[in-house]
Amino acid sequence: MLNVRIEAAIQKNICTTIGAGPAPDGLRNAINYTVFPGGARIRPTILMSVALACGDESPGLSDAAASAIEFIHCASLVHDDLPCFDDSALRRGKPTVHRAFGETTAVLVGDSLIVNAFATLAAQAAHAPKRAPELITYLAKYTGFPHGICAGQAWEDESVIDLASYHLSKTGALFIAATQMGALAAGHDPEPWQELGARIGQAFQVADDLMDVLSNDQDIGKPVGQDAKNNRPNAVTEYGVEGAKKLLNDVLGGAIASIPSCPGEAQLAKMVQMQSSRLMSVHQTHPHA
Amino acid sequence: MLNVRIEAAIQKNICTTIGAGPAPDGLRNAINYTVFPGGARIRPTILMSVALACGDESPGLSDAAASAIEFIHCASLVHDDLPCFDDSALRRGKPTVHRAFGETTAVLVGDSLIVNAFATLAAQAAHAPKRAPELITYLAKYTGFPHGICAGQAWEDESVIDLASYHLSKTGALFIAATQMGALAAGHDPEPWQELGARIGQAFQVADDLMDVLSNDQDIGKPVGQDAKNNRPNAVTEYGVEGAKKLLNDVLGGAIASIPSCPGEAQLAKMVQMQSSRLMSVHQTHPHA
Repeated sequence: MLNVRIEAAIQKNICTTIGAGPAPDGLRNAINYTVFPGGARIRPTILMSVALACGDESPGLSDAAASAIEFIHCASLVHDDLPCFDDSALRRGKPTVHRAFGETTAVLVGDSLIVNAFATLAAQAAHAPKRAPELITYLAKYTGFPHGICAGQAWEDESVIDLASYHLSKTGALFIAATQMGALAAGHDPEPWQELGARIGQAFQVADDLMDVLSNDQDIGKPVGQDAKNNRPNAVTEYGVEGAKKLLNDVLGGAIASIPSCPGEAQLAKMVQMQSSRLMSVHQTHPHA
Repeated sequence: MLNVRIEAAIQKNICTTIGAGPAPDGLRNAINYTVFPGGARIRPTILMSVALACGDESPGLSDAAASAIEFIHCASLVHDDLPCFDDSALRRGKPTVHRAFGETTAVLVGDSLIVNAFATLAAQAAHAPKRAPELITYLAKYTGFPHGICAGQAWEDESVIDLASYHLSKTGALFIAATQMGALAAGHDPEPWQELGARIGQAFQVADDLMDVLSNDQDIGKPVGQDAKNNRPNAVTEYGVEGAKKLLNDVLGGAIASIPSCPGEAQLAKMVQMQSSRLMSVHQTHPHA
């Protein structure tokens, strides 16, 4: 099963790429607390599904890429939960990292996981001298400045927001990274895979907006109403509940239509359809998990 | 001149490796504020000096490595200055990043610079398919968990500190990265260069300890007395002022003696000697710059 493979890959790549020996236990425990147990592992699942659809000719590289993108995602959650950002108390149904381990440790967990993501990919260079650095370049592009999730978060501090850039970098970036890195890990051209990632990202954004308005804290394991509280753009505010649900449906249809020709196209369409069903039943899902 | 070359390299590699387009100006300005004007650029200077001593056969790769290590160093300063760590108001004689741009931006500056360091090295992979990923592996090792500066910082939260690991990871790590990456960029085996980096790191630690006790804020452009305030180990507390000065002298002598055989050995010894003179006149220097 895909989820078993992904968990095994994450377990293998967590910090093992960068050696062993005496190390501060607090940070070690906090890194483990952050990464395990995981949420839905949505980004690595998408990455791996694309890699499989493209033939998955370098399974070790796909595993590393799936792990790396999850490390970046986990890092972003820990930093976004910090008191200076969302000041969240709950994440995946348990105390956030800074609540459980303190704020300094939470900053270092995020930093360490970012580093470990790139170390995980670099460790594949002996077997994949061309693709491993390319994967690093893609992951960096969608993580840092000016187009990655760091930039996406920073848009929220601007007085004038470029909404397209904001959504593309805040939520879209790691989904685009997932589809493009999946293709790249399997030796396919990543460019045709941009649209699928962007549309999945947009779907998750709209689903998240719906959930932020319609759910309660217990349902989703984290605080709701954050967009209104932090004065952030939200599709429900813009289009109403029914309008946002229609938009979500349209975007998911477009995602499936955008899948490039590849050996496992039909199987991949089924995976997107499955994720879509999860998203459409917004009250039972955890889009940020 | 070496410092002109280093500044040009840093300027070239700052965020240019990861594309252009609309981006949040606040984060862009804060990244520039963090990296320019620089301090003494000590780590890239050491890296470049070692690369030159080893023949500097891939100047573009040495430039990228020097830039990458400075990005990591700058990221660490911004995160270490945060309210939850040192809560510093001043750095390099001007307001710290979180004071000037806010705490959220400061977190994102650090994250973005870490990402950009790895992107800068990955961009060299087309020209240096073997060495670029190796440089990423070394930089990651000395930045993250369990042996990098993230681990070094985390030791300060432990009730029982492994002092050797603490010093090696907190201050030594990026100096070891500097010497080893300099050798690697020039195509030499990095392993014999570990000791030089470790000894230079120890010298800077002792000099920093002396300065923290003996200087005042105006002299060094950042607050002093932080070790006592934060109950951190300090060589002056342990050996007294004269004992710490003798230790510094011994360590620097050992550093010069440890330089591996290489074409530019004599020139490199002179550089270490020059840095040593700076360190020995602790009241006029900025070891963390």
